[in-house]
This record gives sequence, C-alpha cells and structure tokens, in this order.
Amino acid sequence: MITALAGGVGAAKFLKGLSRVVKTEQLTIIVNTGDDIKISGLHVSPDIDIVIYTLSNVVDRQKGWGLREDTFKFLEGLDRFGIETWFNIGDQDLATHMYRTHLRNKGHTPSEITSKIARAFGIKNIKILPMTDEDVETWIVTDKGEMHFQEYLIKMGMIPHVRGINIKGIEKAQPAPGVIKAIEEATIIIICPSNPIISIGPILKVSKVRETLKRSSAKVVAISPLVGGKPLKGPADRLMRGLGLEVSSTQVAKLYKDFLDEIVIDEKDANEEHAIKSLGIKPLIIDTIMSNEEKAQCIAEQVLNLQNESL
Amino acid sequence: MITALAGGVGAAKFLKGLSRVVKTEQLTIIVNTGDDIKISGLHVSPDIDIVIYTLSNVVDRQKGWGLREDTFKFLEGLDRFGIETWFNIGDQDLATHMYRTHLRNKGHTPSEITSKIARAFGIKNIKILPMTDEDVETWIVTDKGEMHFQEYLIKMGMIPHVRGINIKGIEKAQPAPGVIKAIEEATIIIICPSNPIISIGPILKVSKVRETLKRSSAKVVAISPLVGGKPLKGPADRLMRGLGLEVSSTQVAKLYKDFLDEIVIDEKDANEEHAIKSLGIKPLIIDTIMSNEEKAQCIAEQVLNLQNESL
Repeated sequence: MITALAGGVGAAKFLKGLSRVVKTEQLTIIVNTGDDIKISGLHVSPDIDIVIYTLSNVVDRQKGWGLREDTFKFLEGLDRFGIETWFNIGDQDLATHMYRTHLRNKGHTPSEITSKIARAFGIKNIKILPMTDEDVETWIVTDKGEMHFQEYLIKMGMIPHVRGINIKGIEKAQPAPGVIKAIEEATIIIICPSNPIISIGPILKVSKVRETLKRSSAKVVAISPLVGGKPLKGPADRLMRGLGLEVSSTQVAKLYKDFLDEIVIDEKDANEEHAIKSLGIKPLIIDTIMSNEEKAQCIAEQVLNLQNESL
Repeated sequence: MITALAGGVGAAKFLKGLSRVVKTEQLTIIVNTGDDIKISGLHVSPDIDIVIYTLSNVVDRQKGWGLREDTFKFLEGLDRFGIETWFNIGDQDLATHMYRTHLRNKGHTPSEITSKIARAFGIKNIKILPMTDEDVETWIVTDKGEMHFQEYLIKMGMIPHVRGINIKGIEKAQPAPGVIKAIEEATIIIICPSNPIISIGPILKVSKVRETLKRSSAKVVAISPLVGGKPLKGPADRLMRGLGLEVSSTQVAKLYKDFLDEIVIDEKDANEEHAIKSLGIKPLIIDTIMSNEEKAQCIAEQVLNLQNESL
C-alpha cells in the first residue's frame, strides 16, 4: 500500500509517473484542500482537480492545470457584467466546479464529491481523498493586507511581501474518512514535490495526521519541490522567506524532520547532502525535473526502490 | 412613444429593424417571460436574452439565439457527469444566466436584472421590460405527458402531439413596473411577429394587460408570424392545431380581435385579405420575411407609416 500526500501541479506530475509503475489499487492520495476557494458562488478545489485531470490524461499539460483544449468564453461573458475574472476558469473546467457546487449545496461531503468526480474522469482504482471534509482556506498576510492564497497567487502575481500565513479553519479540521487508515496501512508514504508551506503544510496540520506519520513504521520519503534552491513554479521561496525560513531542500527536510526518513533532492542541490544527513535524514540525489511522464515515472521508480533499502 | 409586445427570435429581428428607424428612447419592449426555465440551478430567460443580444448586435444570427462565436465546452463538461445537456447553453451565454441567477438569489427582481443585463450589453435608451416579475412557466400537455415548453421544443423536438397548454403562475402574474404605463402612453402598439399562443399569449394573460390594450386609443398593429400559412420556425402551427385552432393569419387576427386595428400579413397569404377584413381588422399585405436587417427595417417603416393613417 502506497500513500502519497499531494498538493497541485508538481504532485500531480509525480503521481502520474507513479501511477504508471504501481498497481493503481495500491495507491491512496491525500490531497490538500487548504487552497480551496469559494468564488462567484462556486466551490473550487484546485489541487483535487489538478490531480484528477492529470491522472486521467485530460490536463492542459502546458499550464499544468485546467483541461486540454478548453475555452475561456465564460470569463469573457462575466467580464461584461463587471465581475472580477482574475480566477482562471475554463469553460469545460467550469462544469466540474458547478457539479461540485451543486453536490455541496445538496449536502454531499468533499470526500463523496471527489470520488464522484474522479469516477466521472475515468479514475476507478486510485483512491483520491481530500485531507479533510471541513472547509479550510489559506490566507496570506502581506504588506498589502491579508488575502486568500489564490488572490495572492493569481490576482496579485505573488508581488506583495509575505508576512505570515493563516490557514483558516485548520484547527477544527478532522481527517476525511480513510486518511488516517491510509497512513497507518501504508508500506511507503510519499510526500510529493509540493510546496511545504501551503500544500503539504495544511495536510500535516489536520488533526492526527502528523502524529500518525510519526508513529508509522513505513518508510516516509519526501521529494523536495526545490531545484537549485528555488521552486520551479509557484511561491514556495516567497512563502518560506516570508516565514523567516531558509529556502533550501535542507529546510524542507527540517519541516518534515519528526517523521521523515529520506528526501529526494535535485542534483543541483547536491551540496546540501551533509546538512540533510546531519538531520538524521537520508538524501537521494537525482535529477528531479519532471519534463515528461517518462521522467516522472523514472523518479517514481527510484522512490519506490527505497522501500527495499533497510532503514 | 412606441410600445412593442415581443417573444423571441422573430420579434428580436423585427425590433432590430425598428430600432434603426426610431429614436431609441421612444421604444419600450414588453417581453414574454412565460418560457423562462430554471435548469441546472440557473434562471434562464430565453426571450429577454434573444431580444437583448439581437439589439446589441452580438446575437448568433445563424441560430437567432445565443452569442456569436460562442463555444459549448461547458455542456461537454457537464455531459461527463451524466447531467442532461439538451438545453443549449453557450459558454459566454452562461455568464448571462449565472449573473441573472446570482442577482435573483440576492433578491433582485427580473425587471431590475433585465435592465442591468441590457446596460451591460450596451443598450442604453430602449426600455426592455419583462411582462411580469412573477415566475411563470409554460407547460405543454402532450400525448407523451406534460412537459416544460423548452423540453417540448428542444429535447422532444416538437414531436409529441399537443393537447393543451398550461401557463403555470399566470393567474397571479402582475404586470412588471412600467408595463401598463407603456401601453397607456403609446401612440402605436406593435405586436411583434411572435407565436400568438406561447409568446404573445402569456403577455396578454398578465393582469390588466389585455384590458389596457382594449382601452388604448393608440393604433394596435400585429405582424403575423405565419408565412404561407406556416411559421418560419418554431411550433406555432403545432400549438394552434393542438388547441383546435386553424393555422392562419386570420386566426392570429381573431386571437387579437378585441384590441387589434391592423395586421401585417405576408404576400403568400394575400388570399386571407377578405376573411381578415370581415373581422373588422385591416390587413397590410407585404413581404414579411426578414432575411436581413434592411428588410426588417423596411417592414418596421411600413408598420410605423400606419400611424399616419386614420383608423
């Protein structure tokens, strides 16, 4: 049994590679819902959708999110009514958000909805679980005020200086059905190459998740999302710096220190080997850039091989 | 002051022609909302939208409804979730329905919303009024059961045999603000070339509308929607026949007999001249096919000229 903790684009690429080399029924993915947003009356769950779209081969690979060959006419239409359109929603993608919203309004849980959406996209065996069925929202405290993470990321283009992070609702968040069991029963636990602050961070803050990871006898392996001391995409560096943290794979390892056995870091960060080892964590130094599915698969294979090593 | 009673496609084409030859601030259009539908949680007001889109030059002229160069990706997306997609909603068009639904849910009236949508589409001076602010729905009783008019029209392709019509909510429908005043203050009242049963019929059934038309001293002119004894489009013939009525411009004139002064009929129906005259209604026999805006304008000019005739 393989259990992965996942954010959005980076995680989804890795998981696509992983899904090519494992029996899909062995795989459970616990996905961050901390960057969910309610916008124009729609419940949007970006990381869940990115994971589903990527695993089902319908993702827009260029962008890493949204659906391939989607159009954006709906946003053009909204613009006419003076409605804010900074949050990118493709027309076909919108159907997913409408479906989710419809089911939410009818009282279905995020877990139930995620499972229905995954099935609609042809994903039958892989279990995709939201981290929690409670509503959690990540807000970023900046020098321009506090704003939803999506607003910081998309509308403000990550320009305001980060002063803090406020994951609203996280203190009450209970793990979604299956989350704790998936961690307890895993033979390997993979922390995907996702932002440690706003993707993996919220999952670790869900009640009982971190303790269960600590107690686990399975090997816990993280893949650092940093290459050459920088994220390939997204605001991991800005957020880490904003919290007074060093931007390095060593720092990522430190954030997971209490439950992590090994961390996969990029060749460009080979110089961090000793610092990581001194934390009591074993580094695996490889090329981590997932430029295509074959490379993602190759990384996944190397991660799986770590299972056979003695701890 | 010119007041027009309007349904969808035919009315909109005529009104586009009319808008080219009158001062727009003179024109008030009372639009049927009897074929409104609530579908997938959206409030859709087909005739209102067709009139607005046509007057603002963004309509898909080939279809007569919807927006030019719109895409239909949203419906493709919905289809994936097993949701019925027989009701055609373009992606950009959807923004209008979402905006209307959002405002309806916030408590705005159809009148207020229609005015906001018209302004968003650049219509400044022409007053476009829904016939009523109450919810009215037209249901068709057929040999395959009773169904919403849109379902009969689109999903069932007008195939079931019509046995009756049930305009739900019409008995309680009060005229929207401005409707009665627009009829009272008009110097000419035009019944657009629309279906007399399910487009003009519901407007006439709104409380006080028919009485006000009867009392009016303005000339009341209808344009028959039939050409050669048949509708150019839509189910007028099926509905008239289903109600046991003859399908003819004479019959259309009869339906309006208590308030109508003149009726414009097509050259192909010139043989109806005497039958119409015998109702005490004056026929104007011209080419009524609006194949382009210039022809619609030409018909509008001939209708306006009737004002100068003595009754």
